[in-house]
Amino acid sequence: MTQIHESVCAAQKPNKAQKDRDALVKRTLQKIKNKFIVLSGKGGVGKTSVSVNLAIALAAKGYNVGIMDVDLHGPDVPRMLGLKGMIELNENRKLRPMAYSENLKAVSIESLSARKDDAIIWRGPLKNAAIQQFISEVEWGELDYLIIDSPPGTGDEPLTVAQTIDDAKAIIVTTPQEVSLADVRKSINFCKTLKMEIFGLVENMSGFACPHCNEMIDLFGTGGGEKTAREAGVRFLGRIPFDQNVVACGDEGASFQEKYADSQVTRALADIAESIMNEAALG
Amino acid sequence: MTQIHESVCAAQKPNKAQKDRDALVKRTLQKIKNKFIVLSGKGGVGKTSVSVNLAIALAAKGYNVGIMDVDLHGPDVPRMLGLKGMIELNENRKLRPMAYSENLKAVSIESLSARKDDAIIWRGPLKNAAIQQFISEVEWGELDYLIIDSPPGTGDEPLTVAQTIDDAKAIIVTTPQEVSLADVRKSINFCKTLKMEIFGLVENMSGFACPHCNEMIDLFGTGGGEKTAREAGVRFLGRIPFDQNVVACGDEGASFQEKYADSQVTRALADIAESIMNEAALG
Repeated sequence: MTQIHESVCAAQKPNKAQKDRDALVKRTLQKIKNKFIVLSGKGGVGKTSVSVNLAIALAAKGYNVGIMDVDLHGPDVPRMLGLKGMIELNENRKLRPMAYSENLKAVSIESLSARKDDAIIWRGPLKNAAIQQFISEVEWGELDYLIIDSPPGTGDEPLTVAQTIDDAKAIIVTTPQEVSLADVRKSINFCKTLKMEIFGLVENMSGFACPHCNEMIDLFGTGGGEKTAREAGVRFLGRIPFDQNVVACGDEGASFQEKYADSQVTRALADIAESIMNEAALG
Repeated sequence: MTQIHESVCAAQKPNKAQKDRDALVKRTLQKIKNKFIVLSGKGGVGKTSVSVNLAIALAAKGYNVGIMDVDLHGPDVPRMLGLKGMIELNENRKLRPMAYSENLKAVSIESLSARKDDAIIWRGPLKNAAIQQFISEVEWGELDYLIIDSPPGTGDEPLTVAQTIDDAKAIIVTTPQEVSLADVRKSINFCKTLKMEIFGLVENMSGFACPHCNEMIDLFGTGGGEKTAREAGVRFLGRIPFDQNVVACGDEGASFQEKYADSQVTRALADIAESIMNEAALG
């Protein structure tokens, strides 16, 4: 049964252990060229699908890519990547990330828990320590890209990332529905307040064609993300249509892009990955 | 621009102010007959839609109903209820909940913020204090039902509710997709760990008929919620199909149940509200 962990106030006074960890975090981050955190205001807009699929698209181009799952209460990255088993310690007593392929690695609290159905009932300070350890205690090695999958909202987890990784850029995911857009405007203001650069906004689940009659169905509307990006002065990275096969592949841990290489979703993801690679080349 | 609030460690040592608040929380809760917290593992499964629609269904039966939105980073209850404007202080210097109707009242951080797009960048301890104030500082009056809409996951907000309201019962919402079910098993273990009674599990967005050709489309699968409930020994409260009009009504702040009284969704919601009323009658 899961244990309850309460706030650890002592963790907030910097001591030697904290200073050592800060130094280790800094050294680890120096070896990672580009860091992107994937944010959303509302949950269930496909943030993890976008994170995982962008990481796969970048790795397919030959880059060294890491994906760090900081959604501690709903860690879905391993399942979507089809990664089973547990993270182990290597010879340097560091955590060895799970390998999806030669050049795509992942770390998630899910791969550190033996009982997958246990809940992580942690309050904020413990979550912050865990996220810092995901950087300092993991043998990431030299990476071209680190994609960080965050829980929805503007709470402890994205705040810790923003304060720990000062050159992280935000990719904000929304669906076109107004309740999601209202929350995304909060995410945009979160980034502005924390002076975190917004790389751009993705409109996910945008339009859907019935697989039987091919007529368009307005599941969550369409176009609202582009409009919100324009109003907020944020780059619009593109629309990804809804496709029930994305859900099915995520559940199976199969790569959607390999299975449905010709789909509209795969093309939209490739375009966004292209924007990321261009940005990195310029940066 | 939004302010950043860091952890308030002092708030964790009980002092006189805290003891007074605890007493006030207790007195307020004594006047509320039945408390339900709506939980989910994953975001975007329609937790807020279910909360709001159950509250409307119970109020339509003549009960006094309150809805408390403890999703501080994504507070969507006021938008879904079509509530505009701000919460005000009454003559007793208590917060007067927003009125949806004579017997349905709501409190949300959204109705306390003048600038709706500002992000609530709070760490845990401040969130806990806010939630306790949503009970102690609000003139709820005598209520038959309090429906508490929680953010997804098993973090600070549901933990505070579970520890503050010891007779709250959980209604867990999931979609049928496996990534949601994996997270819902964590929610079930969260309740067991905290000894919070689970009232039952709702399978939302279960099946979808194309509005053009009427063929069934497996958006998120179907049946997985019922299976998970059975395996965990939790009561299954029913399936609510996906209906794009629920999204549209939520965005407009219109009552789906009034606008689409004859729909399958309205019938499914009425059945769940019936279960709640029966439980309360027995309790």
